Amino acid sequence: MAEKVGVGLVGFGVVGTGMVSCLLKNSEQIDARSGIPVVMKTIADLDITTPRSVDTTGIRLTQNIDDILNDPEIDVVVELVGGTDFAYNLIVKILEAGKDVVTANKALLAYRGQELFELAEEKGRLLLFEAAVGGGIPIIQALRNGICSTEVESIYGILNGTANYILTRMEEAHLDFQTALVEAQARGYAEADPTFDIEGHDTAHKIVLLSELAFGTRVSFEDVYREGITRLTSFDLKMAQELGYRIKLLAVAKRHETGLEVRVHPALVPLDSQIAAVSGVFNAIFVEGDPLGPAMFYGQGAGGSATGAAVVADIMEAARQKARGKERDNYYTFDHQDLVVRPMGESICAYYLKLMLKDEPGVLAQVAAALGEQRVSIASFIQEDPHAEHQALPVVMTTHRATESSMVAALDVVHKLEGVVEEPFLLRIEELEG
Amino acid sequence: MAEKVGVGLVGFGVVGTGMVSCLLKNSEQIDARSGIPVVMKTIADLDITTPRSVDTTGIRLTQNIDDILNDPEIDVVVELVGGTDFAYNLIVKILEAGKDVVTANKALLAYRGQELFELAEEKGRLLLFEAAVGGGIPIIQALRNGICSTEVESIYGILNGTANYILTRMEEAHLDFQTALVEAQARGYAEADPTFDIEGHDTAHKIVLLSELAFGTRVSFEDVYREGITRLTSFDLKMAQELGYRIKLLAVAKRHETGLEVRVHPALVPLDSQIAAVSGVFNAIFVEGDPLGPAMFYGQGAGGSATGAAVVADIMEAARQKARGKERDNYYTFDHQDLVVRPMGESICAYYLKLMLKDEPGVLAQVAAALGEQRVSIASFIQEDPHAEHQALPVVMTTHRATESSMVAALDVVHKLEGVVEEPFLLRIEELEG
Repeated sequence: MAEKVGVGLVGFGVVGTGMVSCLLKNSEQIDARSGIPVVMKTIADLDITTPRSVDTTGIRLTQNIDDILNDPEIDVVVELVGGTDFAYNLIVKILEAGKDVVTANKALLAYRGQELFELAEEKGRLLLFEAAVGGGIPIIQALRNGICSTEVESIYGILNGTANYILTRMEEAHLDFQTALVEAQARGYAEADPTFDIEGHDTAHKIVLLSELAFGTRVSFEDVYREGITRLTSFDLKMAQELGYRIKLLAVAKRHETGLEVRVHPALVPLDSQIAAVSGVFNAIFVEGDPLGPAMFYGQGAGGSATGAAVVADIMEAARQKARGKERDNYYTFDHQDLVVRPMGESICAYYLKLMLKDEPGVLAQVAAALGEQRVSIASFIQEDPHAEHQALPVVMTTHRATESSMVAALDVVHKLEGVVEEPFLLRIEELEG
Repeated sequence: MAEKVGVGLVGFGVVGTGMVSCLLKNSEQIDARSGIPVVMKTIADLDITTPRSVDTTGIRLTQNIDDILNDPEIDVVVELVGGTDFAYNLIVKILEAGKDVVTANKALLAYRGQELFELAEEKGRLLLFEAAVGGGIPIIQALRNGICSTEVESIYGILNGTANYILTRMEEAHLDFQTALVEAQARGYAEADPTFDIEGHDTAHKIVLLSELAFGTRVSFEDVYREGITRLTSFDLKMAQELGYRIKLLAVAKRHETGLEVRVHPALVPLDSQIAAVSGVFNAIFVEGDPLGPAMFYGQGAGGSATGAAVVADIMEAARQKARGKERDNYYTFDHQDLVVRPMGESICAYYLKLMLKDEPGVLAQVAAALGEQRVSIASFIQEDPHAEHQALPVVMTTHRATESSMVAALDVVHKLEGVVEEPFLLRIEELEG
């Protein structure tokens, strides 16, 4: 039996600091539960001199990754450099050096996970990534282990804390998108370049990983429909609330006879649903399957502490497997199904539709006709402030369920109507039960 | 490498049927994710002839447990007989026969888990129990693995679907306790003898197991304060709502410098908390710790399908470990801490207090004085229907936080006041953040 497990870290940022802090603070518990002492040996970063909020006494600090790769006493290497190309090459090197890998890099795994998972299997090493989705939510463990006997039918997730914080603030303080974004940046909840978070890329990376695990199949990132939250206004959030909904940046994945439906976009969810209650930087993942029924996992989506704790949980998994001196078990099986992602046009939703209409007779009838032509039927209708003297008036309607392709075809006609000012704005409505 | 994993089942009731159904229905996925075929070989039950809602073609049905214990092709045995003495002896025999054990028996594990876990370690076998707490919620996996790096500070749980169903129905349909119980029995949500569920025994068994895993220590069932829901009236639920709360049968476990606080009782939780939204037969477990922060796990608490799925997840864990041909890893470490359960008197809560007071001047002043004597201060006060001509009037008050022992001492005095009819009724208020 091995005497201890040595840990190396590449990338000493917020999550790295959280991880080292967790390892040091809870070391007694971590050693006991791993069945072997876990020792933080070496940290590599280009900037290794700026002080971090954690005591590094006794830890080797270096700018040279080879100090980790070539150290036979290091068993597990944590990759927290982010990005894709450099991180990809680094993980390959770690696996080739015969060490286990722990990473939080969802972008890399969403793009090139397949190659890396195969290499890990080939080398008989672990490639663990609990921290990649929902920092404080052990959803990867749950999918690969806790609920692994269930055939998952659907997943709904709020997977990005930045976007959820912005939407929460827009709703509760009636802020416009830009103001809420600036506030999020000031509070450290959004990056200087927030594109990945607010345009849904990050959420899409995460739903790719969750879908792959849940459905046991490969999912190509390019096949995932993706739409961000930048076009939402506080008017939309207010209208949604009047209609009994809250707007969330939602990731949806469902299994159908004809393939998988995987999409990321803002959506109206019922005010009294569990997922509507997820506010601020929190994340939640709602899973339904047979025979599990519905289940929900809720916790902090990001931040150094919660994500660092997830990284350490993976290190402990690697430590246990080393302590037991056995063949490594990555727990995932992506290949027992071969499902394709359906085109977005086949998705069926109810819709929220915002139009700016000229205050003229007959315009609304033309809109209704264009929708009817595609068999989209209107469920409700709100015209705000109809007596004010405006050139154009915002009209919000909801529709019954229809395919995305019908809706797109109908909006194509609606957009060209003379009485319709501005491009129609469409949101999907998800009638969750939970 | 082993060629397949054989499964035996003892106890072919609702959960057993759910488990067999899951194994058969999802067998392709189960085999792929286990890395080895999982074969349902033999089922033993005294009543093995009554038809169940699952196809048993190809499965050996027997009344003789030895057909399982003596079969070298059976690797994992599922114990679903319930009860304590017989089940204890059965699990000992399974472990001694060199087989892994999967059980849902929380009562047994809460009473005599220590002996059994030690025997499993000694024999190098698994003793898995995901199905013992929160059927459809993989909380055991989460505690022993997913969030194992976090030092847990507190757990709040709704752990009994029967009690939660009764409370939900009492509140939403203004039923009294007895009517709601009879309805629950008619719908199959409560047993003919519901004592274990409504008196909090079942919840207490479960919080013992969760506390042991979360805090890494032994917890004696006898040390857990326990109070059921039988004294609640729809009046209490209505009053709670007026005060901004909902009443739930809550399990609470907290770590303090001076030891653990572990208690089970009905409690008022804020209406807007996540845990207040858990209705009907659902369960939820709220965990907070360092560095995880708050997290919540939600799903079906019981029922053959969800609980059966949890049993199968454990079978798959055993199958994987066998497939990898390694030393068994039970993942739990109860012994790295040695914490004692504090006396209930040391608990600090805010309180809801219902009194029947004679409609006479000065009575309320005497009550306030008795509370004040113990430094319990009144936070709010509702006197229903003060002008009706009753001999005695119900008065509800809430207090600020005080120790249980102060409150008990104060109530001892209050109870003896001449103007106080009936025994005072006390509930605890939990101001959850989540």
